[in-house]
Amino acid sequence: MTSAAADLDALVAKHADLLENAQRAARTREYWSAFPESPSPRVYGEDAAAEGEQAFRALLGTTLDLGQPTDGTQVGSESSPYGLEIGVRYPRASADQLVEASRIANRAWRSATPIERAAVCAEILVRINRRSFELAHAVMHTSGQAFVMAFQAGGPNAQDRGLEATAYALTEQTRHASSVLWEKPQGKRPPLRMTKEFTPVARGIGLVVCCNTFPTWNAYPGIFASLATGNTVIVKPHPHAVLPLAVTVSIAREVLAEFGFDPNVVLLAPEDDGDRLAADLALDPQIGIVDFTGSTAFGEWLERNARQALVYTEKAGVNSVIFESTDAYRAALGNLAFTLSLYSGQMCTTTQNILIPAEGVQTDEGVKTRSEFAIDLGEAMDKLLGDDEKAAALLGGIVSDDVAKRLNAASASPDLAVSNRQVNVAEWPDARIYTPVVLLAKTSDDHTYTQECFGPVSFLVETATRDEAIDAFAEMTKEQGALTAGVYSTDEAYLERVREAALDAGVSLSENLTGGVFVNQTAAFSDFHATGANPAANATYVDGHFVAGRFRFIGTRRHAPDA
Amino acid sequence: MTSAAADLDALVAKHADLLENAQRAARTREYWSAFPESPSPRVYGEDAAAEGEQAFRALLGTTLDLGQPTDGTQVGSESSPYGLEIGVRYPRASADQLVEASRIANRAWRSATPIERAAVCAEILVRINRRSFELAHAVMHTSGQAFVMAFQAGGPNAQDRGLEATAYALTEQTRHASSVLWEKPQGKRPPLRMTKEFTPVARGIGLVVCCNTFPTWNAYPGIFASLATGNTVIVKPHPHAVLPLAVTVSIAREVLAEFGFDPNVVLLAPEDDGDRLAADLALDPQIGIVDFTGSTAFGEWLERNARQALVYTEKAGVNSVIFESTDAYRAALGNLAFTLSLYSGQMCTTTQNILIPAEGVQTDEGVKTRSEFAIDLGEAMDKLLGDDEKAAALLGGIVSDDVAKRLNAASASPDLAVSNRQVNVAEWPDARIYTPVVLLAKTSDDHTYTQECFGPVSFLVETATRDEAIDAFAEMTKEQGALTAGVYSTDEAYLERVREAALDAGVSLSENLTGGVFVNQTAAFSDFHATGANPAANATYVDGHFVAGRFRFIGTRRHAPDA
Repeated sequence: MTSAAADLDALVAKHADLLENAQRAARTREYWSAFPESPSPRVYGEDAAAEGEQAFRALLGTTLDLGQPTDGTQVGSESSPYGLEIGVRYPRASADQLVEASRIANRAWRSATPIERAAVCAEILVRINRRSFELAHAVMHTSGQAFVMAFQAGGPNAQDRGLEATAYALTEQTRHASSVLWEKPQGKRPPLRMTKEFTPVARGIGLVVCCNTFPTWNAYPGIFASLATGNTVIVKPHPHAVLPLAVTVSIAREVLAEFGFDPNVVLLAPEDDGDRLAADLALDPQIGIVDFTGSTAFGEWLERNARQALVYTEKAGVNSVIFESTDAYRAALGNLAFTLSLYSGQMCTTTQNILIPAEGVQTDEGVKTRSEFAIDLGEAMDKLLGDDEKAAALLGGIVSDDVAKRLNAASASPDLAVSNRQVNVAEWPDARIYTPVVLLAKTSDDHTYTQECFGPVSFLVETATRDEAIDAFAEMTKEQGALTAGVYSTDEAYLERVREAALDAGVSLSENLTGGVFVNQTAAFSDFHATGANPAANATYVDGHFVAGRFRFIGTRRHAPDA
Repeated sequence: MTSAAADLDALVAKHADLLENAQRAARTREYWSAFPESPSPRVYGEDAAAEGEQAFRALLGTTLDLGQPTDGTQVGSESSPYGLEIGVRYPRASADQLVEASRIANRAWRSATPIERAAVCAEILVRINRRSFELAHAVMHTSGQAFVMAFQAGGPNAQDRGLEATAYALTEQTRHASSVLWEKPQGKRPPLRMTKEFTPVARGIGLVVCCNTFPTWNAYPGIFASLATGNTVIVKPHPHAVLPLAVTVSIAREVLAEFGFDPNVVLLAPEDDGDRLAADLALDPQIGIVDFTGSTAFGEWLERNARQALVYTEKAGVNSVIFESTDAYRAALGNLAFTLSLYSGQMCTTTQNILIPAEGVQTDEGVKTRSEFAIDLGEAMDKLLGDDEKAAALLGGIVSDDVAKRLNAASASPDLAVSNRQVNVAEWPDARIYTPVVLLAKTSDDHTYTQECFGPVSFLVETATRDEAIDAFAEMTKEQGALTAGVYSTDEAYLERVREAALDAGVSLSENLTGGVFVNQTAAFSDFHATGANPAANATYVDGHFVAGRFRFIGTRRHAPDA
C-alpha cells in the first residue's frame, strides 16, 4: 500500500485546482465547466472522434467482462433505435454476490480521506472524459439520442454533474474541523481540555438505478455523490442501456485498482428485462442509499419499501409553459419548437403542456388565438425540422416501443394541431425517427394532458383566462410534479405572480426564453436539476441535501493533558 | 409593514455577530457558548433567580392562553416528581385548526430572507435566555431534573442547541449566491447571458413532537431548524411536560408579532394522554417535517406512516462502556458513578451496560474482578450520593410511574450488584428520589441488558474475553442503537480497535473519561448528539443533513441584455 499511498498524494495534488474550482463554481453559480462540450477536433484532438467510434465498434457483439464476481450466466438485451446490431453480452451476478463483494471493498474505501476519495473521483471523470466519443456512440445507440447530443449530454455535461456531486461531497465532509483541542473555561480552576476527532463515515453501499434515456447523465450524480462520501457503489443499468455504464464502471474499476483500492468499490449489476434485480438489491439491509431515475410507480415502491436506505428519486412529471404575451413572438416559437423537438421530447424536462388563455396571446404581431398559435408553432417546427438530415440530428430516435405506440395513437387523434412525419436518413435506413405531434386540449380534459405523456407529444391547453393558466400550472405541478416550467409574459405583475406560483409549487422557472437557452436544459454548477419540492423528484442535482445524508460524522474524544 | 421591516433590519444588525460567532464555532468545533450555563447572580443578575421562581409560581393553577385558535376545550395533566401541584390548563385546538392557522402564517414567514429569519430566531433565543430561571422551574417540575440541571440543560444548553440549528440553517441557505449573471462563452458569437435567482423555499409546516425528560433541549434543535429555514412550526409537547414549551412558544409568538409576522408561525399543540394529536398532525398533508424524540415504537410508526414529511427521529438506544483497563481506577469509577447518577440515569445518553472481561479489569490498583469492580463502583456511588441533599441535587426525581416500576423490579432482582435507597429532602417531602441500581449480567443473558431499560438501572455485563466486549458493544449498537459509547483502556491497540468498532457501528466514543466531562453529556457547537448512523436516531444535533432537507432552492432565470 505504500507506493499506492504515494500515488494517492500525487493524485490529490494533481486534482486540487479542479476540485477547488468546482467547489467555487457551485458557490457562485457562475458559468463554469470542467469538461468541454464541443466535440471539435481542436478540443479533443484530431483522432479522437475516429478512435472513439472504433473503440465503440470493437465492443459490439462481444462479451464485456469487467472482472467482477459472476453467477456464470450472461445478459444482454440492448437494441439501437438506429437499427445497429449491438449484441453485447454482460456476465451477470446475483444480488448477494454483488452486495458481498461491495461490502468487502467498503472498508479500505471508507478509510480513505475525503480529499483522497474526491481525487479518485476526479481522476475517474477525467478518464471518462477522454473516452467521450466512445461513450457518445454507446449513449446514442442505447438511448436514441442524436450523436452530438449523446456526446454532450452523455459525455461532458454528465461528467460535469459527476464532478459537481464530488465537489459537494468534499465540501460537506470538510465543512467542520476534523479535529480540535476543546477547552472549556472553569472559572478559577484549570479549563476542561478535550481532544476531539470527527470522522465522516459512509452509510455502506449506494445502489444507483439508471434509466434508458440518459444512462450516464442521470446516473453520475448519484454514483459520484455516494462514492465521494465513502460508500461503495453498485450501478444497476436499465436493461436497454447497459453499455455506457459498463464503460463507465470499467474506467472506475481501472482507476480504483491503480490507486490500491479494491475495484469492487464500483460494480455493474446488469440484468435482463423483468429480472427485478433492482428490487432485490434495494431491499438488502447492506444497501444504505438508493439513487433512482425512472417511473413513478417503481420510484414510489422504492420510497415505500427500501426503508433501510436513503432513497433519492427522480420520477415522472408534467411540465408546463404559460404563453400569456410576448414581444418576440417568432423567437419564442423557435425556442419552444426546439424544446419540443430536442431528442423527440424524450427528456423528463421537456414541456408537455403549453397553456394559452382563451383570449389569446398578446404578441408583437398582434393577438394570436390558440388556432393561430398552433399554425405558427407548426411552421416554426417545419422550419426547424424541414431538412431530414438536420431534423434527425435534433430529434434522435424513438427510444422504446412504448413511446412509439403513444406517438402513433396521438398522431391519429381528432385533436391534432401539429401533425408529424417520419424522417429518413441515409446512414440509418432502419432508424425510428419522427417529428413531434401537438394536440389541442382544454383545461376540462384533465384525463389527457395532466398525465405524463412521455415522448414527442405535447398539448396546447386552452384556459378560460390568463389567471386560470397560473392556477392550472400550479395545480398540475403540485399534484403530478414537474421538472421544469416556463412562462412568456411582458407583464411584470403577471410574471411576479407566476414566479410566486412556481415557488409555491416548488418548480424552477424559465422566463421569456427566446435565445440559445431552453427550458429543458440545465447547466451544472449553476442550475439545479429538479427541486425535490414537488412529486416529480425528492432531491435535486446537486445541493447540500443531495450529499449530506450519505455519511455521518462520528466523534471520538478524550482528555487532553493540562496545558 | 414598513416600520416592522425597519425593525427587522435593526434586528439583523443586532444579531449579526452572534450568528457569525455561532457559524464559526460550528466550523471550528472549538468551545463556544452563547448562553452562560452558570445560574450565578453575577451572570444573570441579583434578582433573576427570585423573579424567575416568582414568574413560575404565578403560572401554577392558571389557564395559559397564548392567543391561539382553540376548539373551546382545555387540557392539562402535568404532575411534578417533587410533589408540587402544577394544575396549569391549556386551551386545546384540533389538528385541523392548528394546521390551517400555521398554513396561513406561512406565506409572510417564508418570504422573509434567511438572515431575517435567523435574526428573529436569535431574538427569540435571547429572550428565552432571560427567562431561564422561570424555565428551569418549569423543566424541573415536569421532567424531575434537579434544579441546577434543569437550569443548565433546560435553559442555556438548550438555547445553545437552538442557536446551533439556527446557524446551520443560515449557513445552508446562504451557501450559494442568491443571484448571478451567468455568461456562457459561444466561441466567436456573443456569450449566452442569463440572470438567475435562487430562492430557498421551505417545505411547509414543521411538527415538533417533544419528550417528557428534556422538553426544551430535545425540542429546540427541530423548532429552530424548521423555523430558520422558513417553515412554520407546531410544537406538540409531551402531555406531562407542556409548561416549558408553553413558555417557549409564548416568547416566540411575542417576538414574531413584534416584528410584523403572524404569531401563528409558532403554535403550541397541547394534548391529554392518549389524544393521539401527534399522530393526527403527523399525517396531515401540510406537515412537511416531523421532529420526534421518544419511544422507538412511535418513532418507527412516524417513519413508516408520515410519508409526506421528512421525519427526524431520536428513539431508544442501549449505551455501553467497555472497561478493559485503566491507570486511574478511582477517577474512572467516580466518572462512571456520576454518569449513572445524573438525573437518575433518565438520559437517552446514560450508560446502561458496563462491559467487563471475565479476566477482570487491569488497573493501577491491580486486577479487579467484576465482583470487586461492583463493590468499588458501589463505594464510588455511596461517596457521591451519601448526603441526601447533595444526592437529590444530582439525581433529581423519577419522571414517571413506568420508570419507578422498573426501578422497583430491578431492586428486587437476585442479580443485584449495587442496591439503592430512597433519598429524602426537606424541601420536597413528597418527592420521588432514589439512588440507582446496578445489576450483574452475562453476555448470554441477552434478554435483559440488550433491551433499553430506561432509568436508574444499569448492568455489569461479563464478557468471556476483552475481544468479546468489543463484539458485544458493536453488535448491540448495530441492533439496538446507541446514543453514546465509552471505553477505558490503557492499550492503544485495543483503543484503536474499539474506535474502529465505533465508526463501524456508527456511534460516537468517549475514551478514558476521568475528569469533568461525562459520556452522557455533549457540548453544542462541538459534539454531535446522536449520529443518525445507528437505529437510535436517524439524524444528529446538528449537522448539514439536519437542516438541508427542510427547504429547497428554487431557481428562476431569464435572458440578460447583451453586454
